[in-house]
Amino acid sequence: MKDEHTTLAVSILMSIVAGIFSYKILPKLRETFVRVNLSGRDMLKADKPLLPETMGLPIAIIYLIVLFSFIPFPFINWFEGAKLVHEEQSDFATFPYNKLGEILAAILAIQSMVLLGFADDVLDVRWRYKVWLPAIAGIPLLIFYYTNMGATHVVLPLQLRPYLGELVDLGILYYIYMAMVIIFCTHSINILAGINGVEAGQSLVIAISVIMNDMLYIFNNPDGASLEAHLFSLYFLIPFVGVTLALLYHNWYPARVFVGDTFCYFAGMTFAVVGILGHFSKTLMLFFLPQIFNFIYSCPQLFRFVECPRHRMPRFDPTTGLLQCSTVRLNDKKPTRFLGNIMIKFLHAIGLLKVFQYDKNGRILECNNLTLVNLVLAYVGPMSEQNTTLSILCIQVLSSLLAFIIRYKLVHFVY
Amino acid sequence: MKDEHTTLAVSILMSIVAGIFSYKILPKLRETFVRVNLSGRDMLKADKPLLPETMGLPIAIIYLIVLFSFIPFPFINWFEGAKLVHEEQSDFATFPYNKLGEILAAILAIQSMVLLGFADDVLDVRWRYKVWLPAIAGIPLLIFYYTNMGATHVVLPLQLRPYLGELVDLGILYYIYMAMVIIFCTHSINILAGINGVEAGQSLVIAISVIMNDMLYIFNNPDGASLEAHLFSLYFLIPFVGVTLALLYHNWYPARVFVGDTFCYFAGMTFAVVGILGHFSKTLMLFFLPQIFNFIYSCPQLFRFVECPRHRMPRFDPTTGLLQCSTVRLNDKKPTRFLGNIMIKFLHAIGLLKVFQYDKNGRILECNNLTLVNLVLAYVGPMSEQNTTLSILCIQVLSSLLAFIIRYKLVHFVY
Repeated sequence: MKDEHTTLAVSILMSIVAGIFSYKILPKLRETFVRVNLSGRDMLKADKPLLPETMGLPIAIIYLIVLFSFIPFPFINWFEGAKLVHEEQSDFATFPYNKLGEILAAILAIQSMVLLGFADDVLDVRWRYKVWLPAIAGIPLLIFYYTNMGATHVVLPLQLRPYLGELVDLGILYYIYMAMVIIFCTHSINILAGINGVEAGQSLVIAISVIMNDMLYIFNNPDGASLEAHLFSLYFLIPFVGVTLALLYHNWYPARVFVGDTFCYFAGMTFAVVGILGHFSKTLMLFFLPQIFNFIYSCPQLFRFVECPRHRMPRFDPTTGLLQCSTVRLNDKKPTRFLGNIMIKFLHAIGLLKVFQYDKNGRILECNNLTLVNLVLAYVGPMSEQNTTLSILCIQVLSSLLAFIIRYKLVHFVY
Repeated sequence: MKDEHTTLAVSILMSIVAGIFSYKILPKLRETFVRVNLSGRDMLKADKPLLPETMGLPIAIIYLIVLFSFIPFPFINWFEGAKLVHEEQSDFATFPYNKLGEILAAILAIQSMVLLGFADDVLDVRWRYKVWLPAIAGIPLLIFYYTNMGATHVVLPLQLRPYLGELVDLGILYYIYMAMVIIFCTHSINILAGINGVEAGQSLVIAISVIMNDMLYIFNNPDGASLEAHLFSLYFLIPFVGVTLALLYHNWYPARVFVGDTFCYFAGMTFAVVGILGHFSKTLMLFFLPQIFNFIYSCPQLFRFVECPRHRMPRFDPTTGLLQCSTVRLNDKKPTRFLGNIMIKFLHAIGLLKVFQYDKNGRILECNNLTLVNLVLAYVGPMSEQNTTLSILCIQVLSSLLAFIIRYKLVHFVY
């Protein structure tokens, strides 16, 4: 345990340095990014200032440099053993290549998404390509899961056991599930986006929640294997918190920089990686509840059952300086079809839709765009942009609390 | 051996598909790249057409996708063994994590350089940063070298053995040497550049030379360990040849696309990776003789002992349509200092400098820019751009022949 303390201390120290460096370097890079057209207008401000985009790239690169430099530290014990062998004083075990390989597979997946995000920011990669690429980047992770005799069994709830037994082996389905987790995590932060501070803010809340979960494991269940998995998670998340704090500072209202797709993909894959290699992907999904809700809520528009405008960010009211929810007119471009109408009516019935205009037959003509941000604004708004971000982050914190309750209390009723 | 044949066949098949796909996709991406300002003018043509830059990025991404998808194949044997164990029919060895880890470390290093190259193409990263980054990307490679009980002994030439013994242990110096190899390979192709087809062409010659060297090992020395190292090299270089052929086709005179720093870094790191993990970095350096010459020859300008213009590409003569060597005026901006003058005089004395103007005291006022391309043009030019590229590629092929002679014939005189 003492060595793990040293390694953790190194990780924390490196993360602090990386955070301070990120904090200092971001303002200096603003001009460079604007000069090469990596910039966009902040539409939710009165003067629509031009801000540098893709600022997730420098912090992701700093993060990667930290991880590369950190790689040898978890093996410091082994290196010291090896030195003794060189001096023929001691016997020592073979190198833990599986641990090193896991770290490399994880960095590889994260770095792939930094590259994809950067390419997307610069070149606007088409959805049909970019939606699948995270799964390819995750191949090494899945190989590790497989070769570690990864369990593909799911423990069934008590209530189902009389019928189906205690364990069900999902086999190949479990790998498909993990590939879906990777794809979902990578894209979901990019979908809950569009106002200052919300991408970096939600990532920070998730990261801190996972770190707290890791701590609970490390200090309450001193069982070797699970200890290692959660240490692994900490090694990846502590530097992530360091650089993300710096980015959030500069992206907080009123933002001086935008984070770009690069940051969203980078953050999402970092979570996917620790969840899968740490064998707690289901707990991780609990921390993604707002993202899951936002994704499902967005589906009617994402899959074009309902008209979807190019941007679904909130609307800025220049007279009050507040944000209102943006709306979509359902039949203006082309009439909404049967399935789309059913979805809209269903959302309306369960209170998840604010209608702005009906036609004379009582059919819905205009409603809020289907994102969590717009839903919050529809019911609680108009609000300042800062308060909108804070509301979303509150929801994220509350659902993390809910996740802990489900994971550590309610779980006893079903398992 | 039969399994290796299957794996090689898979690699060749994937490489052919990747090559054809790259060949088809590059022309389609031209417009996208030009639209986002990833473009530059081809200054060595009469009409200075605007060409898309950074076209190394799509082929590098295709290459990476091939490698990711290929990762499971070298372990197909093990997976089949594992299946039998699951069915409790057989015993099988633990997974070869060291092999998998090596592949991951290699892909990680290559992908890091794709990311760095792309960032450099978009943002113009400063030399002081980018020169060291390849070494950081190489940390996992060096860890593998270390943990595999990597030999840091150098076998001394016969002539020195009476004085120093047969072996000298370089220890940490050997790791510094490998870091230098990584840095050198990554940047050296970027320095021998500037005319249509020369970056992709030289990379293709080097790749084919290393593949031939691998073949010699695989078919002549059936010794287990070295066989694996050279198979490893083939798995990385065969797809490289596939995608590079496609790029060279579109970059050949008159170029429709530029390759960008992305390709140069990508190619360089691919060679460094196979050389280091295959334990044949010294042989690899023999295949880099033109790059080594070009680098040393460039040093007086690179390190600013001698005035260095922003671009050192050849000069296009619009009347003849031929290339001439570009020149530098030594004392126009600021007088060349003592060391710079000595270097210039030395190069002149050994015939590696063409002087275009002397002052009345016989001092050199104007000479060719110090690159291999300009040196060739100074002595053999003026030439068409195509013939200039062909001359450089001839030099590359001849030095590969020399490398084989040194490696397999002359070596017996000293070892």
